[in-house]
Amino acid sequence: MSDESFITLCAGIMDDAEAVVLTTVGSDGYPHSRALLNLRNRAAYPSLGDFYDNEANRLGVWFTTNTSSAKIAEIRENGKAAAYYTVPREFRGVMLAGDLEIIEDPAITHFFWQENWTMYYPKGKDDPDYSIVRLHPRRVKGWAGFKPFLFTVS
Amino acid sequence: MSDESFITLCAGIMDDAEAVVLTTVGSDGYPHSRALLNLRNRAAYPSLGDFYDNEANRLGVWFTTNTSSAKIAEIRENGKAAAYYTVPREFRGVMLAGDLEIIEDPAITHFFWQENWTMYYPKGKDDPDYSIVRLHPRRVKGWAGFKPFLFTVS
Repeated sequence: MSDESFITLCAGIMDDAEAVVLTTVGSDGYPHSRALLNLRNRAAYPSLGDFYDNEANRLGVWFTTNTSSAKIAEIRENGKAAAYYTVPREFRGVMLAGDLEIIEDPAITHFFWQENWTMYYPKGKDDPDYSIVRLHPRRVKGWAGFKPFLFTVS
Repeated sequence: MSDESFITLCAGIMDDAEAVVLTTVGSDGYPHSRALLNLRNRAAYPSLGDFYDNEANRLGVWFTTNTSSAKIAEIRENGKAAAYYTVPREFRGVMLAGDLEIIEDPAITHFFWQENWTMYYPKGKDDPDYSIVRLHPRRVKGWAGFKPFLFTVS
């Protein structure tokens, strides 16, 4: 499989998955998983579509979470993480493992902001509890049907 | 929330989820996630239902995987893992973190065996590549709507 067709396959899974499972590693060494809003889902976030079409962002992973959450504390201590997207009925899945970065640049946090997120962040896009987290993938592994495919980001 | 109602809520999510995401931790410290068949799903595995109804097994987590797979090698090196079940449309999810055990007892591996698994294990229920892995939960965290709930297994 060429890099290009691999990226197309993975990006398609990320764009279709209902949720994404983010796993960090706690100080006791146990992984800690939770589902987060999938900001890659095209149907749920049509305004972000063009951004992911940009070549540099095609495997890009961004999350939103509360600054005060336990996961932000975990990330500050250990940024190694994995994001997993799946469309279970079609046996399609993709895992991106890499390092998390907490984004504080308003140019980026404002870009991702959605009007209805006031249910999570009552003070709006400048709410100090509103965070954007980015995963920088180092290793990507995908599954389509029974065929696994592996890709290392250089 | 009482322990009993917590367990009922979690078991219900495990029984309804289409897939389960199992995360182990590689020797490089990065988590490694993949979706596996959810052997808790009542619709897909009706013959196993009574087993999970047994009080000792209500939060039980069992997987099947190929003995020769990379994940079995990872588990032998580091058994710390998390299993995550979700019903994304309903914002229900449960995470069980704990230690994995590779089960070799035929009384257990034969119990879980399903006739159509010859597509994964051509030699049938005694195929040396057929493995059952059990997670022994230490910490359980669940989400129902916007309400997270946490439970530590004693």
